[in-house]
Amino acid sequence: MEKKMSVTLASGNITDVYFADSLKDVSLWTASYGENVFWVLDSNSARLLESIPKKSIVLEPGEVHKNIESLEKIISEALSCGSARDTRFIAFGGGVICDMTALASSLYMRGAGLTLIPTTLLCMVDATLGGKTAIDYKGGKNLVGTFYPAGEVIISADTLSTLPIREYKCGLGEVIKHAFLSSDDGLMNFLSENREKILMQDDQVLHDMVYRSLLVKKEFIEADPLETRGIRSFLNLGHTFAHALESMEGYRISHGEAVAWGLGRALEASWRKGLIGSGLKNLGIKLLNDYGYDTGYRISRESIPSFMSALSKDKKKSNGSIKFVLLKGIGEPLLMALDDDSVKEIVLA
Amino acid sequence: MEKKMSVTLASGNITDVYFADSLKDVSLWTASYGENVFWVLDSNSARLLESIPKKSIVLEPGEVHKNIESLEKIISEALSCGSARDTRFIAFGGGVICDMTALASSLYMRGAGLTLIPTTLLCMVDATLGGKTAIDYKGGKNLVGTFYPAGEVIISADTLSTLPIREYKCGLGEVIKHAFLSSDDGLMNFLSENREKILMQDDQVLHDMVYRSLLVKKEFIEADPLETRGIRSFLNLGHTFAHALESMEGYRISHGEAVAWGLGRALEASWRKGLIGSGLKNLGIKLLNDYGYDTGYRISRESIPSFMSALSKDKKKSNGSIKFVLLKGIGEPLLMALDDDSVKEIVLA
Repeated sequence: MEKKMSVTLASGNITDVYFADSLKDVSLWTASYGENVFWVLDSNSARLLESIPKKSIVLEPGEVHKNIESLEKIISEALSCGSARDTRFIAFGGGVICDMTALASSLYMRGAGLTLIPTTLLCMVDATLGGKTAIDYKGGKNLVGTFYPAGEVIISADTLSTLPIREYKCGLGEVIKHAFLSSDDGLMNFLSENREKILMQDDQVLHDMVYRSLLVKKEFIEADPLETRGIRSFLNLGHTFAHALESMEGYRISHGEAVAWGLGRALEASWRKGLIGSGLKNLGIKLLNDYGYDTGYRISRESIPSFMSALSKDKKKSNGSIKFVLLKGIGEPLLMALDDDSVKEIVLA
Repeated sequence: MEKKMSVTLASGNITDVYFADSLKDVSLWTASYGENVFWVLDSNSARLLESIPKKSIVLEPGEVHKNIESLEKIISEALSCGSARDTRFIAFGGGVICDMTALASSLYMRGAGLTLIPTTLLCMVDATLGGKTAIDYKGGKNLVGTFYPAGEVIISADTLSTLPIREYKCGLGEVIKHAFLSSDDGLMNFLSENREKILMQDDQVLHDMVYRSLLVKKEFIEADPLETRGIRSFLNLGHTFAHALESMEGYRISHGEAVAWGLGRALEASWRKGLIGSGLKNLGIKLLNDYGYDTGYRISRESIPSFMSALSKDKKKSNGSIKFVLLKGIGEPLLMALDDDSVKEIVLA
């Protein structure tokens, strides 16, 4: 297993990112921790392991279970297993499992050890780095959470082998987002040139893509570890639209699809506000379409009140107005408040 | 209102400590925050205010309510009041209210603003500084929590005026603990010389005592903000015994009384292990007795299994053995593992 990156976060905490050759490689690594561990899995990720670890909890999969009840189950079972402050919580699953395990580990005796082993592409490129932990609460996505960086993240491409293509493509939405935020067009070109291999989940190309994507994320979070300087919030490009759509739809659509849609809407808004030309907008929309995303979806007139209400619950609300991340160009995000009429113009059918 | 101290904590966060002349002074200060606040009180502390703040929740008082249900009530009501990340949570109450509000504020959208206004002496000298937030969970005291320093702490002696003497004396246990941990004997002498004024709650002496006590705490927490270096855990002098007693008694005894008892047991253990002479032990026991604490209480033979079981849940467990803070002298704490027989020798009737 190879350490490829170290990311320094809040309180000087460091997250080491490892790329493993295979799940067997991962197992050898985690075995070295001995008995003082506590695994959190869901019934999907559990199938990837030869056996369920002794000290563990297996949760139901899905965003609807990313709630306070599941959080309490994790903490309660960790306690039953005799976990202490020096116990290492190991999350083995997608974003829901990783976000909840990280939150539980941050709360458990005010902070236990934490290893994240993402089993979805979305989680590899999005949830593992940056220390954001969360559960959903009363319709508010990630409304309850902490900042608590994992000590280590382990990426192993073969965890994705049983992932439905729809889930895989969810992660690609975030990768494309990172391409728009990158300081150069390297990731953008990589995505254009390697489309087939990426969609075929070629192991080497996959690791390369995840690595490049995490490098972009690393840059933003190291500059603003607690999201207090406005820099890190640029990683929310497309997300304000996306979260409102997910909330309105009761999380029946996937996060990645919502983000890809939101990315399209952010490009549209950036163009309408005169920040970018139609060339960059169309290039972005084409890339999203090439990867099979539905950028043409619009909110119906009947649904718009519930969409606007979901928007108003957004965490990025400040002094009453909601700010959106828009683009002046590749790698040039900015924050801009959009009034309700501007939002409707962009999302309405 | 006068700023007397600034304490630098995890992530470079700074807690400013203010001493107010009166509650009226406090009200003027908090009014300056306008509408973007959310107050958390209990039905005891609420009586100190002329009216209940508009955006607020009033909880039932007492340690039995320091649980996940109350935590959820705070978050849920904050959400109903339209709170956002830039909302300031204001805790007005004792340690239970301050600890829970701080935890809720750390979790709310991954961290809202936080002002603590302690209304008990225990909370003034113990819970407000250092960023420890908590709820109890399944018999484990403060088992779930985060590190999240308050932006500001406001001390006003008149908040204590309606406090029963029993509650007031709870805080004195922590002050005496700080006297044992202080690098000089200034606080120890202050406590001996001002016993009457302290017990009469003279405002000026009280502020002076709280200030001196917080200076001791400041020294330990700044040297070890996340309790990872072993220094900060010295503040747990007496607490390992105390927490087990509280847990065994179902939190029917007060934290301060438990701490005073635990302090006596820690002095006894330090003497039995040959770390201190009988002189210092007796001086400590006498000071505790002079302030009216029952240092002679012992665990009955029937209760000892439940006491030992409560001990085994202690957060300071590491590699299976429980470490106790003992003393080599005033201001010279150290960590030492005690085996079960040694513990029983010290606590058994």
